[in-house]
Amino acid sequence: MDKRTEISDLGEFGLIDLIASKFPENIQDSTEKGIGDDAAVINHKEKTVISSDLLLEGVHFDLGYMPIQHLGYKSVAVNVSDIASMNAIPTQITINLGLSNRISLEAVKAACKNFKVDLVGGDTSTSTSGLVISVTAIGEVEEENIAYRSKAKDKDIICVTGDLGAAYLGLQVLEREKQVFLTNPEMQPKLEGYDYIIQRLLKPEARLDIIHELRDQNIVPTSMIDVSDGLASDLMHIAKQSGLGARIYEDKLPIDQLTYTTAVEFNLDPITCVLNGGEDYELLFTIDQKDFEKLEKHPDIHFIGYMEKGSEIGLVTKNEQWVPLQAQGWNHFKD
Amino acid sequence: MDKRTEISDLGEFGLIDLIASKFPENIQDSTEKGIGDDAAVINHKEKTVISSDLLLEGVHFDLGYMPIQHLGYKSVAVNVSDIASMNAIPTQITINLGLSNRISLEAVKAACKNFKVDLVGGDTSTSTSGLVISVTAIGEVEEENIAYRSKAKDKDIICVTGDLGAAYLGLQVLEREKQVFLTNPEMQPKLEGYDYIIQRLLKPEARLDIIHELRDQNIVPTSMIDVSDGLASDLMHIAKQSGLGARIYEDKLPIDQLTYTTAVEFNLDPITCVLNGGEDYELLFTIDQKDFEKLEKHPDIHFIGYMEKGSEIGLVTKNEQWVPLQAQGWNHFKD
Repeated sequence: MDKRTEISDLGEFGLIDLIASKFPENIQDSTEKGIGDDAAVINHKEKTVISSDLLLEGVHFDLGYMPIQHLGYKSVAVNVSDIASMNAIPTQITINLGLSNRISLEAVKAACKNFKVDLVGGDTSTSTSGLVISVTAIGEVEEENIAYRSKAKDKDIICVTGDLGAAYLGLQVLEREKQVFLTNPEMQPKLEGYDYIIQRLLKPEARLDIIHELRDQNIVPTSMIDVSDGLASDLMHIAKQSGLGARIYEDKLPIDQLTYTTAVEFNLDPITCVLNGGEDYELLFTIDQKDFEKLEKHPDIHFIGYMEKGSEIGLVTKNEQWVPLQAQGWNHFKD
Repeated sequence: MDKRTEISDLGEFGLIDLIASKFPENIQDSTEKGIGDDAAVINHKEKTVISSDLLLEGVHFDLGYMPIQHLGYKSVAVNVSDIASMNAIPTQITINLGLSNRISLEAVKAACKNFKVDLVGGDTSTSTSGLVISVTAIGEVEEENIAYRSKAKDKDIICVTGDLGAAYLGLQVLEREKQVFLTNPEMQPKLEGYDYIIQRLLKPEARLDIIHELRDQNIVPTSMIDVSDGLASDLMHIAKQSGLGARIYEDKLPIDQLTYTTAVEFNLDPITCVLNGGEDYELLFTIDQKDFEKLEKHPDIHFIGYMEKGSEIGLVTKNEQWVPLQAQGWNHFKD
């Protein structure tokens, strides 16, 4: 269980030092000791939040269309997003890599810089079985600001940031072009015009801007989760854990124009893509009605419904039909 | 990058709930929220220490002779050992599993119970490429008790717990019996009489007992590391990071009788096994001379040498020869 020796066997000795040298300056005051000892030392004055993820080639990503530099960025972003969805400020990450290919440390560095987190631990090892990435993200939050999934209240307003379904349709485009390429390697993939939705899949951002804005406005969401599985599934987590039902409205759901037209092109129902497409990494949260006024005019927060008593979770369609939501999740990379 | 969906595809839906139900009670006061939200919430009054590890089948372990229940235990133990070697008390762990085989959650539970840590996060996913285990261990330590590798001082006494080289020779025995088995599957492996050294390899313990005893005696090691790479290599980490040389004595090195006789049986030099065998997970640390008296009679702490000015790191043999140490590490599972 000693990785350093393995690396040196393969002439990769010094990779850890290389990582450390690429991350020379710690940005966060709470980073007391980063890479270079048995463990990192962190000095949080408030609560510490921690989330870990394991990403496996062939299961969670396909290097056939996931450029490796984006993978480094995305690995950081999706974990930072988990910290954000506790309403916490991300402060540190650790990354362990099982390498059969090279991963771009520059992209990891760019993500750390963008999200203002210090890389405080990590290791590299050979891998006989594709690229493996394990990320742990660490953040800090005051007790009174923590947003659990379970604290939504009756009549709270359901909010979602950005737009939904884009990453899922980006995946459909990449899948199609991959099939074309496999059939005829001479064909060039046609990706022009799909930039936004492909970017949403390959290089998602964690919505830290929203976390900071909520703080600035003195708003603590009553519950929060990031949209990784899909809106329907993630809303069900909030509703079930809060012991409530939820009602959302079709005409309130945020969808980008390109997402819409691409869905139509693929003979997919755009609303189904919004409800069940995953990996958008937007924030889904609930607020007390008293806070509505403060956010009402926010250009990137959408009010899509409200929590209610009971256990029914459904969508009200444009012609006022009630459709129960299903936790369908997203069979990404497997369709 | 959403594992839950993958699991449900395979009829493993509910595995996270199963894990949570197997870890119903949090032992540590600092565990404010465990499994079940986007991130765990931890309430440390002192500094937080964090260490992560990635373990890959075929690289870090061989299921040919590593019983899967021991693997669950060892994964926890080696990470807890990293926390201990900061002189910190482990409090929580997270575990992410990429499964192509089943891992025994009971063994993980046993390790958590033994080391008194709460399992506060984790995920499971399918794996197309063998078993993958990612563990993050979290601990707490007062600022004044932190033991970095870099703070050893001139004339500090070098201490090591337990005995060394046993895990390495346990591996030699298992490798030999595996070869015999591969040659003739009808042969029963001969493991009787080697119990101690095999146990040292398969089910190592983190020396938390020593951490607590040092606290009880008001001793803060000036530096500390756990012996994972091997004594020579790990001592060099302390010496180099402290900007010092080190001198250890052959006749002071702790070796178990079975380790010694097995080394001879394999035509290996027992002292080389002690110096370069890894994975013993004993603690290597330095103390100020003033603290020597307090530990002098401890049955399981051995005083093997001292730090000195300069950069030379060597062994004084029984016939008073000076042999420079080399960071050989341990090519485990590959010999």
